[in-house]
Amino acid sequence: MRALVLRSGGLVVDDIAEPEPDAGQVLVAPRAAGICGSDLHLLDLAGKAETPGPDMVFGHEFCAEIVDHGPGTDRTLAAGTLVCSLPLAYSASRGVAMLGTTPLRNGAFAERMVLNENLLLPVPNGLSAELAALTEPMAVGWHAVAMARLDDGAVPLVVGCGPVGLAVIAALKVRGIGPVVAADFSPARRRLAEAMGADVVIDPAVESPYARWADALVPEGGAVQPEVVVPLLGWLPSSRPAVVFECVGVPGLIQQVMAGAPRGAQVVVVGACMEPDNFLPIVGLTKELQVQFAVAYTADEFAETLHHLAEGRIDGTPLVTGRVGLDGGAQAFEDLRNPEAHAKILVEPWR
Amino acid sequence: MRALVLRSGGLVVDDIAEPEPDAGQVLVAPRAAGICGSDLHLLDLAGKAETPGPDMVFGHEFCAEIVDHGPGTDRTLAAGTLVCSLPLAYSASRGVAMLGTTPLRNGAFAERMVLNENLLLPVPNGLSAELAALTEPMAVGWHAVAMARLDDGAVPLVVGCGPVGLAVIAALKVRGIGPVVAADFSPARRRLAEAMGADVVIDPAVESPYARWADALVPEGGAVQPEVVVPLLGWLPSSRPAVVFECVGVPGLIQQVMAGAPRGAQVVVVGACMEPDNFLPIVGLTKELQVQFAVAYTADEFAETLHHLAEGRIDGTPLVTGRVGLDGGAQAFEDLRNPEAHAKILVEPWR
Repeated sequence: MRALVLRSGGLVVDDIAEPEPDAGQVLVAPRAAGICGSDLHLLDLAGKAETPGPDMVFGHEFCAEIVDHGPGTDRTLAAGTLVCSLPLAYSASRGVAMLGTTPLRNGAFAERMVLNENLLLPVPNGLSAELAALTEPMAVGWHAVAMARLDDGAVPLVVGCGPVGLAVIAALKVRGIGPVVAADFSPARRRLAEAMGADVVIDPAVESPYARWADALVPEGGAVQPEVVVPLLGWLPSSRPAVVFECVGVPGLIQQVMAGAPRGAQVVVVGACMEPDNFLPIVGLTKELQVQFAVAYTADEFAETLHHLAEGRIDGTPLVTGRVGLDGGAQAFEDLRNPEAHAKILVEPWR
Repeated sequence: MRALVLRSGGLVVDDIAEPEPDAGQVLVAPRAAGICGSDLHLLDLAGKAETPGPDMVFGHEFCAEIVDHGPGTDRTLAAGTLVCSLPLAYSASRGVAMLGTTPLRNGAFAERMVLNENLLLPVPNGLSAELAALTEPMAVGWHAVAMARLDDGAVPLVVGCGPVGLAVIAALKVRGIGPVVAADFSPARRRLAEAMGADVVIDPAVESPYARWADALVPEGGAVQPEVVVPLLGWLPSSRPAVVFECVGVPGLIQQVMAGAPRGAQVVVVGACMEPDNFLPIVGLTKELQVQFAVAYTADEFAETLHHLAEGRIDGTPLVTGRVGLDGGAQAFEDLRNPEAHAKILVEPWR
């Protein structure tokens, strides 16, 4: 079968062995699969490797169609059914593998792949394969918001409006949290933030997102009453709870967010910074910040996200900015580096 | 009156002007006042200053006796009453000042100081002045534990058994949380940790505190059942909730604690690191750690701590390792740098 293969630090389309379902697994044909920022990161790492690793196939954000049932399956879903799944396969003989991130099991940038039957989620409500393929990246935002301390009246700031930040904005809107303040240097990303429902969208080159956020934290009905007290001792002027989502993931951002946050704020770190970072602990200490790291999602959150997409509570349409076949995959990885041009490019291996 | 004065980067005993209560304030005579690690830090900073700042008097951990009532006071507590107070004074003409940390108002290393009448807490239950003077440092631990996410069965690790770590251990024991695992390189500090109630006390030079803590996190009744799942996706083998208190406050400790903590742990940062620090955000992300910074205490927590001391639920006796008059103050600051020799030295200005 044909696949977009990571080989010797580059991407090539080649014929690779047909995957075979183990007990409890099904063979599926990916209908649409998004390219993730982490795929770009792994591609770049592979390009820098002194000795190339084994071939592998990316693609962990997908929607697929059932082709065939392997041994020991219940066959509760018929061939032809459109399904999503956690990007994970396991079997007695091969153990557990994250799909599209290791050479153990190919991901969805291929004509076929295997999934575990008991992880399959049928796509409900006639949702298209391309929008269902957004379940995985949208679940990252849904999970991050679930990890956040969203007390009554909380005002969120979303720093960075790439796919992760946009997923956070979508999740906040589903939960009715707001106003949502969002910031990104890219005009295209700011337009997408608006499309996903952000209420206040800021260009950090023009004004401080933290200042606009601070304005939004003052409760309706007027100014805070001054009191003869010191914030250090925990007597605070009343304000709405503050939560900031760090969705950029480059060195310096966590410190920037800590410096910009008001006392008592929660900082939810969703951006994945792969490098060592610097910060000033005393800033966190004097403000009593809470830094909550959030990654991935639970199985329940993944399923909930698919249902939000299927029922239109999250409209992923604006996120899909490109569609390519396997032959266009390598160029799509490059195109995705320009935030003005693209948010999410889907690979459709059947094209 | 006589006071231990910070002058030109050093400590000298000198006569300074008698403080005068403003409206709502009382004049008190400190009976016992602890030297805090932050006092040492400020002394060191003053020693490095290119131009000396104005004179000031340290002492924000104190118990004092009422001497006289200023104008506009209610006189609800008689002269001679032993009192504690938040280390804070305010008045219309002078604004708010933290006591013993700025030149605005002298702290307790002096024969007399002023306090606000409505912040006074009479020392209950016949508690001695020297143990009542521990209210402030013990309140830091009480607050840090109040900020922690102590779900049922939580197992705490306390890293660093200086006064802050010892206060955290005491607070955990009052709340019935345990087993409390505590670690310090100093044999004397480890003995104090045991005296304050730590259940497992570790010398990090001999064994890993994180390994012993991990053992304690396994629920009673046997081994964790392996499951065919990946922790990344939120399906965790059951274990007791993990919370670690970072009570050292030097660069590298937050990363060390993050690296040693299990997935989903809460890291409570109580140690005050005044310098820039490094860490690996990806460690926090892949483990979904929560880093909660905690500083100082609320007014309620301060009062609660005094009552815990007065009712014997916190026994501060082992912490008091030295008592000096004003004349011994400068030497006491130096002696306190040796953790084998001292935990808390009290200055008694009446000596």
